[in-house]
Amino acid sequence: MVIGILLIILAVFMAPPMIADMAVGHPDWQVFLAAGSVTLFAGVSLVLMNRSPDFGELTGRQAFLLTTLVWAVLAVFAAMPLAFSDLDLSLADALFEAMSGITTTGATVIVDLDHAPPGILLWRAILQWLGGIGIIVMGVAILPILRVGGMQLVRAESSDLSEKILPRAAQIASAIGLLYLGFTLLCAALYWWAGMTPFDAAAHGMTTIATGGFSTIDASIGGFGSPTIDTIAIVFMILGALPFVLYIQVANGQLRPLYADAQVRWFFGILAAFVLSITLWLALVDQFAPVDAFRYASFNVVSLITTTGFASTDYGLWGPFPVAALFFLMAVGGCTGSTSGGIKIFRFAVLHAIASNQFARLIRPHGVVVPTFNRRPLPEAAAISVMAFIFMFGLSFSIVALALSALGLDYLTAMSAAITAVANVGPGLGPVVGPAGSFASLPESAKWLLSAAMLIGRLELFTVLVLFVPSFWRG
Amino acid sequence: MVIGILLIILAVFMAPPMIADMAVGHPDWQVFLAAGSVTLFAGVSLVLMNRSPDFGELTGRQAFLLTTLVWAVLAVFAAMPLAFSDLDLSLADALFEAMSGITTTGATVIVDLDHAPPGILLWRAILQWLGGIGIIVMGVAILPILRVGGMQLVRAESSDLSEKILPRAAQIASAIGLLYLGFTLLCAALYWWAGMTPFDAAAHGMTTIATGGFSTIDASIGGFGSPTIDTIAIVFMILGALPFVLYIQVANGQLRPLYADAQVRWFFGILAAFVLSITLWLALVDQFAPVDAFRYASFNVVSLITTTGFASTDYGLWGPFPVAALFFLMAVGGCTGSTSGGIKIFRFAVLHAIASNQFARLIRPHGVVVPTFNRRPLPEAAAISVMAFIFMFGLSFSIVALALSALGLDYLTAMSAAITAVANVGPGLGPVVGPAGSFASLPESAKWLLSAAMLIGRLELFTVLVLFVPSFWRG
Repeated sequence: MVIGILLIILAVFMAPPMIADMAVGHPDWQVFLAAGSVTLFAGVSLVLMNRSPDFGELTGRQAFLLTTLVWAVLAVFAAMPLAFSDLDLSLADALFEAMSGITTTGATVIVDLDHAPPGILLWRAILQWLGGIGIIVMGVAILPILRVGGMQLVRAESSDLSEKILPRAAQIASAIGLLYLGFTLLCAALYWWAGMTPFDAAAHGMTTIATGGFSTIDASIGGFGSPTIDTIAIVFMILGALPFVLYIQVANGQLRPLYADAQVRWFFGILAAFVLSITLWLALVDQFAPVDAFRYASFNVVSLITTTGFASTDYGLWGPFPVAALFFLMAVGGCTGSTSGGIKIFRFAVLHAIASNQFARLIRPHGVVVPTFNRRPLPEAAAISVMAFIFMFGLSFSIVALALSALGLDYLTAMSAAITAVANVGPGLGPVVGPAGSFASLPESAKWLLSAAMLIGRLELFTVLVLFVPSFWRG
Repeated sequence: MVIGILLIILAVFMAPPMIADMAVGHPDWQVFLAAGSVTLFAGVSLVLMNRSPDFGELTGRQAFLLTTLVWAVLAVFAAMPLAFSDLDLSLADALFEAMSGITTTGATVIVDLDHAPPGILLWRAILQWLGGIGIIVMGVAILPILRVGGMQLVRAESSDLSEKILPRAAQIASAIGLLYLGFTLLCAALYWWAGMTPFDAAAHGMTTIATGGFSTIDASIGGFGSPTIDTIAIVFMILGALPFVLYIQVANGQLRPLYADAQVRWFFGILAAFVLSITLWLALVDQFAPVDAFRYASFNVVSLITTTGFASTDYGLWGPFPVAALFFLMAVGGCTGSTSGGIKIFRFAVLHAIASNQFARLIRPHGVVVPTFNRRPLPEAAAISVMAFIFMFGLSFSIVALALSALGLDYLTAMSAAITAVANVGPGLGPVVGPAGSFASLPESAKWLLSAAMLIGRLELFTVLVLFVPSFWRG
């Protein structure tokens, strides 16, 4: 039922690319028509066949299964236009690209975007845009209820808010949807004003706010060579990586969370530390002019911490410190309740609280000190959930990196492709998967593996991994 | 007082290298005599000046400070013979080498071991041997009381034992000391029997059981080209990485812990998984003969998981999968209560218990399931300590890796030098710090940093890091 409705939505969104291709007379419009029809048919059939209960009535286990199924099925249908298009993508390529789209990762296997038909370019942008709003709604409404990776901590926050401001979850969801649409339109309008064509502006508007990172040209945002466009991108990537609930609070006149919320403070703190140190390196070691150093450092740090993955230059050439710093930055991610991926800021705030508490206990073993998050005591169960999530993140990363290296990828490629997929960033590091390279040259098996890694990372690991625990299927 | 006694012991152990240099007529014997006299004088002065209380009467804070001071002061005095010897080492070099010795890390900055005077070679071996017994005693007697990184879990184990078998801590310590000495003599005797000179056999015997990894020749154990010697090394590296309390139990007829203890089971499980997968890679991809594949894989996996750091070949040339696998292996480490470093096996067993429990809770949110370690319920406070330790390990590794790359080291060198120092392994990966390279070419500042990293890693992170918390010094 849910899958059916979402498939119908997906089918409807295949219309704009079809129209775009018809407008320039590209034969791919038939592919979108066919794929759209199949998707629509599948969606309507599912809706008619099933009268399954709502999400709210599902058991926890059914919810895990359904959530994973929804994303996997949507990726498969979304891959259809790519697989049958002019571009001659293999099945693995098409699924990789579609998965990279709806998980807002932004890694691409298409090598010649500059000459790709407009329909495909628009379709990639739409996938990221839909994936973006999907993940926000999931992060606000579903994952906290399932208590995945300590997300109940964030639920406590937002449900408190909802009591104060908006009485019902549906209202929050629609407010977020409107905000998301508004930001997208604003971002696209600004891109247009700054010199992009309307088509490029629309596509980049969608992938910026979704912190997705798909571009319509091979050189990514850097190809426009405009500091104004860079700045617009920076602002909207950050907007896309902050909790959307925050905007609702601000719109209701609550300005306090803007500076008091733990996630927001930590996000800007980490951001500032990385921008500053990389700016210094670029200015002192790489001899960039200070203003250029700041421009490139801030764009690329924002692009990676928000897990967008736009590139304004090949940061792989910046030397050892930026490469290592950006590698660690990829794992960080934005705030929960936003479109960004990664470990997520609130977990670092929780870790910091726990570590400080550990030190306090070592110093005064008999004093009673309780760790706090957002000025509230942190329940031990939530602390353990958060840490278990980070452990799972490390384990998933390690296993994917090991598997990739077993497929013959070199150390830097394997390590960075693994982290960029699990954290839903986009490009990796090094000549193969870095911003100047492409995932196209990887073996098919690596693409399947990375597609799975993107899905697992997007659904906060446990949602998918729990399906592989034998006892999930018993009783 | 404690520092004074230990300095006197250190001074006494400067006699054998002095005698060794006198025997071959090398002028360095004067250096050992001078350094020994200074150390002895400092030690006796400290003993006479202070009548400070025993360790048992110290507060937690004093114990942290004293533990860190002991290791730092011993490293400085141990560096003296190296700094003033024939080898022309800089101050940073000498401290690095001494720290690498007493922390049983095994990374070296001496490039031409084959022509180094015997006194220096013996001194390096003695430092690792003393460091090895020091860390066992600390791991059994001091760290669990300080509750560092969840080590109270292991204390619960060993103090239970002591009630059953040996009534007092002093008895355990002397039993462990005797065992350690016995293993060393046995290992050296076997090396001699297998073809080493008595001098090489003695030196390698000391550095094998200490899981240290210093060798008397540049080619390390591989230079002897003997499968018998490799096998002896494998057996004694493993013996050095298992909990020494286990041997006391076995000697008392308790065979059950041999197969039932969580640490031992996990240790051999992880070991088997890595040996098997790397053997397969070497046989299938690198076209080694199966028996060679097994020999090289098992030697180098054992050498790295036990954090010894002997090399039998340049595993950096094995290709992407072994390099990535050995990188992750370096962080694992052996068992607590042994001479090995790293994160340590019991923490992985605890993590696994927590992760399984998380999955169980996700599947049945209303069922009450408690995670267990060694068939006992795992207290939440201990679980959090263990996870905080792993987080600190990751953070320390990240900061050291970032700092090294800021000093200009390339990605693989910075990452692997950081992990090998924090985990007290020895060699890293890649041409610079890998088994075929040397730490000698690193900048001075990197050597200071790595010396500090080895000390922090050896003392289970928190023991040192707690000194940098401002509130430690208040009240």
